Amino acid sequence: MTYCAGIRVSEGLVMIADTRTNAGLDDISIYRKLHVFETPGERVLALATAGNLSVTQSALALVTEGLPNPETGEAETLMQAPTMFKAAQLIGAALRKITNEVKASLDEAGVNYNARILFGGQIKGEPMKLYMIYGQGNFIECGRDSPFLQIGEHKYGKPILDSAVTYDTNLQDSLKLGLISFDSTMRSNLAVGPPLDLVVVREDALKLEISCRIEPDEPYFHGLRESWSAALRAAHIAIPAPPYWENAKRVQPGAARPPIKAV
Amino acid sequence: MTYCAGIRVSEGLVMIADTRTNAGLDDISIYRKLHVFETPGERVLALATAGNLSVTQSALALVTEGLPNPETGEAETLMQAPTMFKAAQLIGAALRKITNEVKASLDEAGVNYNARILFGGQIKGEPMKLYMIYGQGNFIECGRDSPFLQIGEHKYGKPILDSAVTYDTNLQDSLKLGLISFDSTMRSNLAVGPPLDLVVVREDALKLEISCRIEPDEPYFHGLRESWSAALRAAHIAIPAPPYWENAKRVQPGAARPPIKAV
Repeated sequence: MTYCAGIRVSEGLVMIADTRTNAGLDDISIYRKLHVFETPGERVLALATAGNLSVTQSALALVTEGLPNPETGEAETLMQAPTMFKAAQLIGAALRKITNEVKASLDEAGVNYNARILFGGQIKGEPMKLYMIYGQGNFIECGRDSPFLQIGEHKYGKPILDSAVTYDTNLQDSLKLGLISFDSTMRSNLAVGPPLDLVVVREDALKLEISCRIEPDEPYFHGLRESWSAALRAAHIAIPAPPYWENAKRVQPGAARPPIKAV
Repeated sequence: MTYCAGIRVSEGLVMIADTRTNAGLDDISIYRKLHVFETPGERVLALATAGNLSVTQSALALVTEGLPNPETGEAETLMQAPTMFKAAQLIGAALRKITNEVKASLDEAGVNYNARILFGGQIKGEPMKLYMIYGQGNFIECGRDSPFLQIGEHKYGKPILDSAVTYDTNLQDSLKLGLISFDSTMRSNLAVGPPLDLVVVREDALKLEISCRIEPDEPYFHGLRESWSAALRAAHIAIPAPPYWENAKRVQPGAARPPIKAV
């Protein structure tokens, strides 16, 4: 399993990925899933990958080494793509090519070959973008109304992003909320685990602002997990007890009873 | 979709179920999924159902009308089951029977026939129990270490239960935490929706303590949703900003960089 999140706010972009891969619970490893391609002042691109590791690694190698353009025959790479849209198309084509190559044999072996990539960044001369690219090669772009995209084990960490991230959230808060989202996910799914890799890119900076790895014992993240857990406890304790005891002195027969009535 | 949760703490049992069913997003209805069988002083049983509605409704009808015992040929009903374990076996047998009858034709039509039931309550003379019964008829019992069970869309609402419910949580707090869990789920998945049905049963009372339906505009639940949302906002605002900006004056080349390096 994997969890990757990309948050695209007015100030820029935050991308976070865990590093746990597993082929069964008895075979857990650490693999980097967040990859950066940067030419400062010209482009900064980040890819976070989820799904079958052999598929995403091969797709990444293809867009690095060059994928032949079906019309011109020329090899195209991520570092040469003229726009973010063209770059997303290239990654999509690479994912589709690898998926098509392996799917018959992996299907036969009962192995899941699905893969998804979050692709964000900026190329000089156009705005910053964030895309989610599917294994079939198609993709969607992140919009202002829901300014984040997730791949992999996304459900546990979605409520906090839904409730708190807007397009106007600043980069520091976006990173903090992203880390809380990872905390919720790691508590509930052992297949998502530390260390976490993250990048922060400010709009129009055309270079990485932060690129770091958070180890499990990193003091800030450890403190955030403790504070968040304590705050959740305090929050639910502060909510008054349900009044249904007073209301329901004795349950009204038939009132809120089931259609299939006990005899 | 559906979400049902059962919380079994030392004081008793809370069970909550939503009422939304859908055959596609354009075909949404309200159906009760929480059903109670009660003979005050003798037994109180509650079933919450998820999955294919035709399968769960038929299984429920079978255990109400009576399922022939394969050895004796006598019809057995939930209201006659001598123990909670025997009652769970009966529900399991009914689910398996219905599933086996429909699965070939539903498979052919591409319709999901999976179903699950949460079954909780108490029969005089033995302790209260909470089970999760699978469509294949097998089941597990809720234990003290993880004093809750969920069926249906369980992920969005699991973090709050994981972080706050223990076997020693009292019934009022268990109900409150259950409702917060439903709030998180309904915010993230439109296929889980109000009204909510809930029951509370105190250990050894052998009757319902609360059985009610919470409509969307019910004041306490509305207030709980607002308070929880405000508390989450306050909680993340109270956490200090990440320190990674100070640490990373300029990203160390190669330090936290990807294995596939930009050229």
